[in-house]
Amino acid sequence: MPASAGPVAPEILADIAAASRILAARGVVDGFGHVSMRHPEASDRFLMPRALAPALTEPADIMEFDLDCAACDGDDRKGFLERFIHGEIFRARPDVGAVVHSHSPSVIPFGLVTAPMQACFHNAAFLAGGVPVFDIACDHGDTDMLVSDNAKGVALARALGDRPVALMRAHGSVACGPTLQTAVFRAVYTEVNARVQHWALALAGDAETLASLSDEEGRLADQPNQTAGRRAWDLWRREIRDQTGW
Amino acid sequence: MPASAGPVAPEILADIAAASRILAARGVVDGFGHVSMRHPEASDRFLMPRALAPALTEPADIMEFDLDCAACDGDDRKGFLERFIHGEIFRARPDVGAVVHSHSPSVIPFGLVTAPMQACFHNAAFLAGGVPVFDIACDHGDTDMLVSDNAKGVALARALGDRPVALMRAHGSVACGPTLQTAVFRAVYTEVNARVQHWALALAGDAETLASLSDEEGRLADQPNQTAGRRAWDLWRREIRDQTGW
Amino acid sequence: MPASAGPVAPEILADIAAASRILAARGVVDGFGHVSMRHPEASDRFLMPRALAPALTEPADIMEFDLDCAACDGDDRKGFLERFIHGEIFRARPDVGAVVHSHSPSVIPFGLVTAPMQACFHNAAFLAGGVPVFDIACDHGDTDMLVSDNAKGVALARALGDRPVALMRAHGSVACGPTLQTAVFRAVYTEVNARVQHWALALAGDAETLASLSDEEGRLADQPNQTAGRRAWDLWRREIRDQTGW
Amino acid sequence: MPASAGPVAPEILADIAAASRILAARGVVDGFGHVSMRHPEASDRFLMPRALAPALTEPADIMEFDLDCAACDGDDRKGFLERFIHGEIFRARPDVGAVVHSHSPSVIPFGLVTAPMQACFHNAAFLAGGVPVFDIACDHGDTDMLVSDNAKGVALARALGDRPVALMRAHGSVACGPTLQTAVFRAVYTEVNARVQHWALALAGDAETLASLSDEEGRLADQPNQTAGRRAWDLWRREIRDQTGW
Repeated sequence: MPASAGPVAPEILADIAAASRILAARGVVDGFGHVSMRHPEASDRFLMPRALAPALTEPADIMEFDLDCAACDGDDRKGFLERFIHGEIFRARPDVGAVVHSHSPSVIPFGLVTAPMQACFHNAAFLAGGVPVFDIACDHGDTDMLVSDNAKGVALARALGDRPVALMRAHGSVACGPTLQTAVFRAVYTEVNARVQHWALALAGDAETLASLSDEEGRLADQPNQTAGRRAWDLWRREIRDQTGW
Repeated sequence: MPASAGPVAPEILADIAAASRILAARGVVDGFGHVSMRHPEASDRFLMPRALAPALTEPADIMEFDLDCAACDGDDRKGFLERFIHGEIFRARPDVGAVVHSHSPSVIPFGLVTAPMQACFHNAAFLAGGVPVFDIACDHGDTDMLVSDNAKGVALARALGDRPVALMRAHGSVACGPTLQTAVFRAVYTEVNARVQHWALALAGDAETLASLSDEEGRLADQPNQTAGRRAWDLWRREIRDQTGW
Repeated sequence: MPASAGPVAPEILADIAAASRILAARGVVDGFGHVSMRHPEASDRFLMPRALAPALTEPADIMEFDLDCAACDGDDRKGFLERFIHGEIFRARPDVGAVVHSHSPSVIPFGLVTAPMQACFHNAAFLAGGVPVFDIACDHGDTDMLVSDNAKGVALARALGDRPVALMRAHGSVACGPTLQTAVFRAVYTEVNARVQHWALALAGDAETLASLSDEEGRLADQPNQTAGRRAWDLWRREIRDQTGW
Repeated sequence: MPASAGPVAPEILADIAAASRILAARGVVDGFGHVSMRHPEASDRFLMPRALAPALTEPADIMEFDLDCAACDGDDRKGFLERFIHGEIFRARPDVGAVVHSHSPSVIPFGLVTAPMQACFHNAAFLAGGVPVFDIACDHGDTDMLVSDNAKGVALARALGDRPVALMRAHGSVACGPTLQTAVFRAVYTEVNARVQHWALALAGDAETLASLSDEEGRLADQPNQTAGRRAWDLWRREIRDQTGW
């Protein structure tokens, strides 16, 4: 049984619970989906709510796991079946501080076809450079589609590579970033960008190429997003604080 | 006049009324549509609200019917014209514990065309294996489109076969499951899946096949949905309890 | 100056004001659009709010007009510029008891193309049999697009013919019915049907015909809509009563 | 350091803050986007909120800038990075009294393709006559996509020309008008029109031309919009007053 890396400031636990509720309020998650954050003091531990609907998460629901996704200090509350998405991305990607997994409905279609997601506007700059698609069937054949053990988490992390977002075929997507705020921002704007791209492709027809962000524009535009992007977090976080008191 | 199979626990009546309101809150029903549950003590009786808008249903509005859709104990409140959808599915399908009928707007288009619904993500796994389309005109010619007697209910149940969902041409759809919670879950995710499939097909164009769930993936993924799916019910049920006190 | 046909019951004035708010709450009107009702005691008078946003209408805002659209008893409040839509339909159509004019966004596209609206499900049965398109430019050349005098109202009423709904090119639509409740129902379900038909046509592609309601199915299905349709009105009306107290 | 042109009536500051919140409530802006108004007493000054999410703006957040976009009287609060959009349009367009910049999701697609926006209904009459697309890459090569200095603002104002709306490739759009109310109206109806046009083009297919407003119809219809359009402002403004007390 892994030991905890030590207590976490209450504001951080509140931010993780708030992130769950923010994602629900923005339509990125519904009764399902989850967000996690690497332990601020220990790169081999991460923090994640116990298995419940994101909109109901409280700070006290946050559990601590090691990168094998075993609960620390014998916490026997039920964790999410798919916490292996998070553990294996944290293991493979030292630059990642937070991970969101969701089934946001505009994004799923891009995992069912060959048309690649593109960065259609500057707030989704992080998508420029490519969005890989993870097909669980490649390594694991017919499954229940869930990333429910370490081996499946490893396969997903490999498909993600060094990118901030990966699609999961017939399932959803994963978004990550250096901070909780950036991971949430990317999950939200992956969904918004998907809506924009659906209509842009419908307008364009088959023959025309979208004038989306170039890779270099994407690289440049992702920088102000990570600072100015705090404005969005401040707005969303305040809505939750007004509702919950924390 | 059929006799009642006996009183039902108040929590069950509240859950049926809550199911009506949940379906309204999720956009699956509007002023129309209905949900029913087989009587927990009698396989030849079912429970269903009197005819009113689902969002207004109270526990006291739940009536009891036999499988011919006659009200028990001479309850003379007005039942839904289309309660025969429910009675005949309960008769034909001993495995079914609950039925939802709705006109959810993203689903109706699939009843007007030859393109079949597919299971586009794991929460809609129950759609893998096929979604039949019931055309009331096949057996009954020009009608008012309503399944308003036993013969029409029999024809619908026959079209449904052993599947969890059937489309009704130029009308709506029906979803069923072993429990009230699963039937509601399936009605909600049939609508979500329809939205996903619309965009997926638009992206794919004519030539490409969607990488939707295989039949075997659908069979495997439907199992965790029925347990983890309780998370969605718990979220939705709590919203109704917060609003109504029951 | 025309004289009033006499006072109207307060409940009727409240229902007209509520109809305005219902249409706003259902997304059929925004800051613009209006609903009217023929005077219950005088076929040559009609009742309609003064010019203001539908969501703000109070019972005291209802004015009375003659069929030339002059305000009765010298009421000098500002009426809607387009009240001539209503007056001329009431004049041409003795069977019509209420009229709705709206710019609901899913409906406008059908006034810009040659594809006809079809009745895609039974609640929109009133659309079977055809939805004419009124082009103000046919009789009046370049205008500000508004039906702002009797001659333009006559042209619109002529295009409507004996139908319940007409589209207005690059503007919106008009829906009417024997009662206030039915006219509101038709305005709402014209919008819902438009959303359904957009996706149905996208699925069908060019070659396939939609399995929409036949003319006879439409005729038959429109009858239960006018009685069962009261359920929708009761739901919507109650929401307004809960908000306003009237 | 530029000097202030003098104090502004509190009602005007409240209207600018309310305009920010109106745009958020209508889905035109989210955590990003901004609105400005020319100083009522000085054509070479403009008023604009400090950098924060539009939905949170208070009257005290409004700053004053000169047309070089330097803050007046040494106000050292952080302004929006893209205030140069506003300053350079005010400089180039003496007829403009207010400017809105947004990333409304239905509009962005039209900046990624060659299909031009058209005026699909009379409330969007201001779009007739053409909607230019500004591509920041034409003059400035690969950038972070932000109009973050005077030179980029000049390039945008040049692309806008004498039109009320311009699209910004892979970014968003800008709408302007003689008054704050008209600029807000145009930003809102640019978004609504985009939704209408998406579906109209989907219905039309490649071969058919939309029966949208002619240039002359657009010119004529834009006039009543600017007076009757006050109805929409009055509705939206009242919602904000009910929420904030100002």
